[in-house]
Amino acid sequence: MTLRIGVIGVGMIGQDHIRRLTEVLSGGRVVAVSDVDHDRARKIASALPGCTSHVTGEELIADPNVDAVVVTTWGPTHEEFVLAAIEAGKPVFCEKPLATTREACERIMSAESGAGQRLVQVGFMRRFDASYRALKDAVDSGRIGAALMMHCAHRMPEAAPNYTSEMAITDCLIHEIDLVRWLFNDEIAAVRVLKPRGNSNTQEGVDDPLFVLIELGSGILVDVEVSANIRYGYDIRGEVVGESGTVALADNTDVVLKQGAHYSGRVPSDWRERFIRAYDIEFQEWIDNLAANKPPAGPTSWDGYAATAVADAAIEAMRTGNRKTVMLATKPDFYQD
Amino acid sequence: MTLRIGVIGVGMIGQDHIRRLTEVLSGGRVVAVSDVDHDRARKIASALPGCTSHVTGEELIADPNVDAVVVTTWGPTHEEFVLAAIEAGKPVFCEKPLATTREACERIMSAESGAGQRLVQVGFMRRFDASYRALKDAVDSGRIGAALMMHCAHRMPEAAPNYTSEMAITDCLIHEIDLVRWLFNDEIAAVRVLKPRGNSNTQEGVDDPLFVLIELGSGILVDVEVSANIRYGYDIRGEVVGESGTVALADNTDVVLKQGAHYSGRVPSDWRERFIRAYDIEFQEWIDNLAANKPPAGPTSWDGYAATAVADAAIEAMRTGNRKTVMLATKPDFYQD
Amino acid sequence: MTLRIGVIGVGMIGQDHIRRLTEVLSGGRVVAVSDVDHDRARKIASALPGCTSHVTGEELIADPNVDAVVVTTWGPTHEEFVLAAIEAGKPVFCEKPLATTREACERIMSAESGAGQRLVQVGFMRRFDASYRALKDAVDSGRIGAALMMHCAHRMPEAAPNYTSEMAITDCLIHEIDLVRWLFNDEIAAVRVLKPRGNSNTQEGVDDPLFVLIELGSGILVDVEVSANIRYGYDIRGEVVGESGTVALADNTDVVLKQGAHYSGRVPSDWRERFIRAYDIEFQEWIDNLAANKPPAGPTSWDGYAATAVADAAIEAMRTGNRKTVMLATKPDFYQD
Amino acid sequence: MTLRIGVIGVGMIGQDHIRRLTEVLSGGRVVAVSDVDHDRARKIASALPGCTSHVTGEELIADPNVDAVVVTTWGPTHEEFVLAAIEAGKPVFCEKPLATTREACERIMSAESGAGQRLVQVGFMRRFDASYRALKDAVDSGRIGAALMMHCAHRMPEAAPNYTSEMAITDCLIHEIDLVRWLFNDEIAAVRVLKPRGNSNTQEGVDDPLFVLIELGSGILVDVEVSANIRYGYDIRGEVVGESGTVALADNTDVVLKQGAHYSGRVPSDWRERFIRAYDIEFQEWIDNLAANKPPAGPTSWDGYAATAVADAAIEAMRTGNRKTVMLATKPDFYQD
Repeated sequence: MTLRIGVIGVGMIGQDHIRRLTEVLSGGRVVAVSDVDHDRARKIASALPGCTSHVTGEELIADPNVDAVVVTTWGPTHEEFVLAAIEAGKPVFCEKPLATTREACERIMSAESGAGQRLVQVGFMRRFDASYRALKDAVDSGRIGAALMMHCAHRMPEAAPNYTSEMAITDCLIHEIDLVRWLFNDEIAAVRVLKPRGNSNTQEGVDDPLFVLIELGSGILVDVEVSANIRYGYDIRGEVVGESGTVALADNTDVVLKQGAHYSGRVPSDWRERFIRAYDIEFQEWIDNLAANKPPAGPTSWDGYAATAVADAAIEAMRTGNRKTVMLATKPDFYQD
Repeated sequence: MTLRIGVIGVGMIGQDHIRRLTEVLSGGRVVAVSDVDHDRARKIASALPGCTSHVTGEELIADPNVDAVVVTTWGPTHEEFVLAAIEAGKPVFCEKPLATTREACERIMSAESGAGQRLVQVGFMRRFDASYRALKDAVDSGRIGAALMMHCAHRMPEAAPNYTSEMAITDCLIHEIDLVRWLFNDEIAAVRVLKPRGNSNTQEGVDDPLFVLIELGSGILVDVEVSANIRYGYDIRGEVVGESGTVALADNTDVVLKQGAHYSGRVPSDWRERFIRAYDIEFQEWIDNLAANKPPAGPTSWDGYAATAVADAAIEAMRTGNRKTVMLATKPDFYQD
Repeated sequence: MTLRIGVIGVGMIGQDHIRRLTEVLSGGRVVAVSDVDHDRARKIASALPGCTSHVTGEELIADPNVDAVVVTTWGPTHEEFVLAAIEAGKPVFCEKPLATTREACERIMSAESGAGQRLVQVGFMRRFDASYRALKDAVDSGRIGAALMMHCAHRMPEAAPNYTSEMAITDCLIHEIDLVRWLFNDEIAAVRVLKPRGNSNTQEGVDDPLFVLIELGSGILVDVEVSANIRYGYDIRGEVVGESGTVALADNTDVVLKQGAHYSGRVPSDWRERFIRAYDIEFQEWIDNLAANKPPAGPTSWDGYAATAVADAAIEAMRTGNRKTVMLATKPDFYQD
Repeated sequence: MTLRIGVIGVGMIGQDHIRRLTEVLSGGRVVAVSDVDHDRARKIASALPGCTSHVTGEELIADPNVDAVVVTTWGPTHEEFVLAAIEAGKPVFCEKPLATTREACERIMSAESGAGQRLVQVGFMRRFDASYRALKDAVDSGRIGAALMMHCAHRMPEAAPNYTSEMAITDCLIHEIDLVRWLFNDEIAAVRVLKPRGNSNTQEGVDDPLFVLIELGSGILVDVEVSANIRYGYDIRGEVVGESGTVALADNTDVVLKQGAHYSGRVPSDWRERFIRAYDIEFQEWIDNLAANKPPAGPTSWDGYAATAVADAAIEAMRTGNRKTVMLATKPDFYQD
């Protein structure tokens, strides 16, 4: 009954998922790991009862004890592992991005539809966040009329030393890209990237913050502030503007303190604090679906493809300063709902 | 057309009202002042165009240029000035308390009803505060069902050096006493005073905070925290609990700041900041009513009497630790609505 | 490594815990159940892989496959099962109340301390709620100075048809009783119960709402509104008043809707919605501690005893209308921290 | 001592200011009115004690009883009255816009600087709103670091039947144009206007909502949603994003209602409710300054000119869909602070 999971890539994010699968969630067990750093894989395996380490991801995928695969390696390697899992007929959860190029994503879609069953889920965890789900419910309920705009902010306290302007797109904005496609059940048609006055906390040569304008097929206009060094906290904002009302993510806090002439509540300090539960739910639902012999119900290969295509357009838009139309392949029937 | 006003007592509160009548509000003018400190009265008068100083309040009341009187002297002197104004047939606005004893209040009611017209308004400004008015509207609308309880807090940052436990009743709680009578259109039947753990910021011998339980005739139970030295701000809280919902004063702030892992808003730092607009509206409505030859529409002599009677009971309850029934005279027909 | 758990009593709450242990949490497995309704126990067992049903709780406790016991039967039967588990040297999680009389609780303490190891944890889940933990952190941090008062409200939308005034104490207030003991690390010295105006939604003969005053040993005064039929939602409020500030449970909501001249957020509709995560954490921590061969870290038999003793006093106070002193046995050394 | 005021134009807004000057504020009196509708002017005058009606604005300005002039006529007539007031050496408060063309504004600046004294104040009331002032204080305090962006929303429940896309700029956005110049003490360098999906509540042919991007000289990027038919209320939002924090206008409400599974607060229903106090303060400060023989301290002719120039650019940007650079004349020394 327990889903036997193999994890390819046991760096920071891989280890966090192993902790989650082992200590937090129900119904799954990590039975195999692999990593480009073999020693690290061996060490992790030895700390988990009944867990083997493999030298390669392909070996892990081939292991008959492995029912399902989690890929958390460096982005450019995602394609080969996802393709191998599809070939082996094993469900694979792949952290974002599905692949780093549109062509690679197309090869994955091709293989998956050729296999004739949904095997791939991409790790866009916001779809599993309770507040985003409530946001979608409110939009779908029609209580604010048709959606016309959405205002987003993606604020991080401090960027890593190797942060680049492109990473603002591929690592940060990518979440809003997937989110608005899911929220409005629509594709992104065009994108613009503006560069406001720069934050002096940010290293030389990096454009921070950015202000991104996303046009959906329906005409809904989404604006996203991406601030990578805003210091005060990790703050993810979103407000959907409809014809007759709005709905927004709330500022939540456990307690309100009154002291020194102010009341105050807490802002999350990092993405972990903000989205830890979304990751838990993402994986629990994935396990539950697979255990019930249902296909994974999260973001598909098509979603992974579309996100990569939009990110490409956004990078181009950032470079040129112009509005960039997003060119998407025709959506394969296999991915129609 | 301009209401010519005489102010008896030009200490801090009197001067603040003079500023309000002169620099903020419309339709009134201070034409005469008096004070037990004659020099102070003369100085104030000389700074106001067309303003005379009188040696006594009685003289001021008799001044034919004075249309209406404001009494802001020391509490024990209120009775004589209010009675003199009634005798002169002039409207009189008297700061709380109307008088310091129930007997004095009864003499005032007697004189006023004898005069056959409403001349007295008592200075309970909370009835003019926009948020308390919205609270009353919500209660009266029936949207929360019948009111069953109310939770109040009356928090001050720092008590004056001469603060006493009795002043927690006569200067602070007195506002909630009047407020709940007005809010629920009911009389107070009994009162208890409890003494929680003491605040070490408060001087020796003073009971602070207090926790007061007020029973209304209808059975509504009101609890009031009175904290005189809570440091963080001047915070007036109130939540009415009904059969199917609640309504509460909101925490308001001009702006919300996000910084250092917290969002925060401002708490008022003193009663002036919190109630300055209530005082303005209180006086503007008083002026407007008198200018339109209508009787004053604010708290009446009966309200002043009832507040004094309840405060007496609360002081007794505080001394004994027991529940104290409030004994009220029969409400004169003259004060029935 | 997996903790093998036996559940005695598989009514509504028992089934919910089985779901939690089976589908949500990590590290535990339900291997045995029993119930006074044998058929129900059999049916539940048959739906769980590798789960046996026993005819009696004693049998279940004796089952060598059972590592730890969860008791969720009718309150009056708790004592016998807890004592049996202690005798068998097995850890036992007992839903509140530990036992329905002080004497029964004393017998349990006696047995447990005689056994020489902590085996019992009582199901007061609020200690595991994230917002209450943040409240305690804030109080312990000293940021609001010494705590002087706490204002609580325990509001439920609709009482069960068999609801009685006593159940307001034993089923509702019991949570605040345990909570404030834990929050302030202090015992309750006395209690009063007041009866405000009654809610017409409540059945004849039941006192609802209640207003309870709890005095802690340190002098901290806690007031608790218990409203059983307030319709609008399940709303648990708490504000600690310190010498220089306050800290309160926040009103949380996933999203804020703006529509029809109002902004609005959601209030939980029942205790499940409000405390579901607290139950999860309560059991996960219990499992994790036992799996690590540590004693349970939650509420002890002494906590169960104290809660029962205070509830007894509160019922007496409700009957008489008077302040009732709580008489506690001397705390056994075994339960000193 | 009383400032004698003449009001040119007694339509809706003129009458509201007359009410304000007569019934709310201190220190001013309306002594003369004029209107293109002579009968209306006569009727208004006859209802005010000591007030004359004039056939033309010029006549009113020439009236020796008039100390200061308020212009609330149709925009295209503002220039002539403001110029006439300057010529007469009388202070003039002109409702927005100062004039409808940049050339007209330049003629006014020329006349005023020629006169050698500040006589003109333009009616941008947001500078007098308490929450915007708190926003500016927070920005100026440096607590959020240097400002980098600002997100604004200007939402109205229902546009007038004659509403046009241009009015979104000239009547609505004009307030944000002035506001951000004042808030950041900077000029606007360029503007873009985007057209999101249209609101089906809005009449055919009108672009609603709009999304406007404003670049300040310093690089600060301001985005403004202008929604003219959003039904739910009149909601003015603003959040300044700094290098290390943000500060935003708060959602204020008098009371919070809990009912039907939600808590809720009120959103203003129209601009009057939202800004009534700002108008009061705007005029009180204008009166106080003039009464003290100080120049008006509010928005100057230069501010009026700049707002008109930016509005022109925004209309052009809306028509073309392109970014439009704002061309401003050199700021005359006369208007340097």
